Amino acid sequence: MSKYWSNIVSRLTPYTPGEQPKDKSLLKLNTNENPYSPSTKVLDAIKLSVKESLRLYPDPESNDLKETISNYYGLSKSNIFVGNGSDEILAFIFQALLKKEAPVLFPDITYSFYPAYCSLYDIKYKKIPLDKELNINLEDYLINNGGIIFPNPNAPTGIPKRLVDIENLLQLNRESVVVIDEAYVDFGTESAVKLINQYKNLLITQSFSKSRSLAGMRLGCAFADEDLIEALNRVKNSFNSYPIDRLAQIAGIKAIQDEDYFNLTRIKIIEARKFLEKELFLINFEVLPSGANFIFTRHKSKDAITIFKILRESGVMVRHFSEPERISQFLRITIGTMEDMQKLISILKATL
Amino acid sequence: MSKYWSNIVSRLTPYTPGEQPKDKSLLKLNTNENPYSPSTKVLDAIKLSVKESLRLYPDPESNDLKETISNYYGLSKSNIFVGNGSDEILAFIFQALLKKEAPVLFPDITYSFYPAYCSLYDIKYKKIPLDKELNINLEDYLINNGGIIFPNPNAPTGIPKRLVDIENLLQLNRESVVVIDEAYVDFGTESAVKLINQYKNLLITQSFSKSRSLAGMRLGCAFADEDLIEALNRVKNSFNSYPIDRLAQIAGIKAIQDEDYFNLTRIKIIEARKFLEKELFLINFEVLPSGANFIFTRHKSKDAITIFKILRESGVMVRHFSEPERISQFLRITIGTMEDMQKLISILKATL
Repeated sequence: MSKYWSNIVSRLTPYTPGEQPKDKSLLKLNTNENPYSPSTKVLDAIKLSVKESLRLYPDPESNDLKETISNYYGLSKSNIFVGNGSDEILAFIFQALLKKEAPVLFPDITYSFYPAYCSLYDIKYKKIPLDKELNINLEDYLINNGGIIFPNPNAPTGIPKRLVDIENLLQLNRESVVVIDEAYVDFGTESAVKLINQYKNLLITQSFSKSRSLAGMRLGCAFADEDLIEALNRVKNSFNSYPIDRLAQIAGIKAIQDEDYFNLTRIKIIEARKFLEKELFLINFEVLPSGANFIFTRHKSKDAITIFKILRESGVMVRHFSEPERISQFLRITIGTMEDMQKLISILKATL
Repeated sequence: MSKYWSNIVSRLTPYTPGEQPKDKSLLKLNTNENPYSPSTKVLDAIKLSVKESLRLYPDPESNDLKETISNYYGLSKSNIFVGNGSDEILAFIFQALLKKEAPVLFPDITYSFYPAYCSLYDIKYKKIPLDKELNINLEDYLINNGGIIFPNPNAPTGIPKRLVDIENLLQLNRESVVVIDEAYVDFGTESAVKLINQYKNLLITQSFSKSRSLAGMRLGCAFADEDLIEALNRVKNSFNSYPIDRLAQIAGIKAIQDEDYFNLTRIKIIEARKFLEKELFLINFEVLPSGANFIFTRHKSKDAITIFKILRESGVMVRHFSEPERISQFLRITIGTMEDMQKLISILKATL
């Protein structure tokens, strides 16, 4: 540790993202990207915006983008926040709304960025264990807390919660903010967006990286009562006035507007997931129920790291989490095209 | 204040950026943007990158961009940090390196985002008054401190410090980090980058928004000893793994590589500034010496707000700061093209 560092720096345990390989020939099923290109309407609109006006700052409030999102979801613009990826929004949420006397609660097996945010902002937290089947049991969250956050569907398990269970939690937990991280919601999980106007403590984040095929552009959004959005705006405007560049703003607008392409691609991914689940079952894999664009799976007899290495040698990248021990025999596999899934199954059949 | 907010939120006094008007016919001299388009090499390279691969995450470490910057400045890649605009980098710097027992020092008249960062991270600070001529007097900073930060040239005055004075400060202040915010350095101020390898506590930030004409793309960089860069990386990786999108990374690379265009445009801006200074002098304005792409000026008898309003009615936007009172008779005017400056002078001559 350098004497020049603030105290917080040496305490940090940064998040480690999945590998981004230079080798383009690899079949990349490790970071939950969409196998389909962004919509041509998105690409064309970005290209048209690559011009002289890039010399000018973007709209600091991303008003047109917020307008488009609010119209799409039937909400008011004051219910919308946008950020440089949903990771940035989550960081603002932890700082603005989850730093309390009581600990924030999240699952013991979930998106591993949550504890990193807690270290960054010195926030107390308590991990709530998943149940025996690796489900989030929301009754376990009805304890003293400074906020609750979980992904729906959960990551890396992919298991979705029903909306009725989320609404039940919201009715019983009124004194702190409940954050639903819906990064993967569009692949077969029911969104809680329709509850925004009923619960003043509900906050939902979504991402353009997965279902909108825009991981490379960095864009996320959040929905909540305007009091919660105001807290996020205050933090954002004390951090970076212009977090979203001109091209990302136009990309987001066009991605929302091209609903046909959005539905076409997400349905293809759901079909490919069903195919993969069925095929894996036939070769002795157990697959957790998924509402996401990935599955969490383990072989009934073969070691996860062995399978991970075999796949890597065959040019397929998947993700393995060595901790906690309870999930160390699982692999997380991103859903690609039907051809990608067929290739994966062929390799597994040939090598296992 | 909502009961759901963290304590910090109600304490925040967010930064207010200059107005971004919808009316494109206005002559925009209020937010220090470059009047020239980004290089055609930059625009062409961005367009070529608007393709299917935007579905994939960008390189989280921006390695190619860091490589390009480090080669250009003759530094090691481990001396380089990049961020989503230099504002994001400044936020990380305050949290990672300036939160100390002793207060961070900065000028009383300077970039008004600095106190906003201090509120955001609960950092003690002490404002050091500019001298009678609105200069930063670095001898005043040789007191107990948890860090020192100032822009060179300073904003909104535009007055540059000489490198010899900065080196003198670095020799006498070894126990805390000295941050030089060089957002405007390329318009006639000497950079301290050549001192990076000599002083382990020197940190420099630069922006692609001004001299590289890329305000719309959000990109900044920082230079320091690798121990300081490591602190910034730890914070960044606890906040957002992928802060810089694919198109911004390629834009930054090409902007650095097109040195001819960079020099051509910044020299034009320096010439237009000299023209404006001379013409303003002839119509009874006092102009502070500027090493930036803006000037800070006051009329010897006419009220600043009156002039501000006259200009706005004539379609010209400049910036006025009502606080502190000491600068309330000044206007900050961004340097545009020679034609922009001629238009401004004509309006002033016709109306004052």
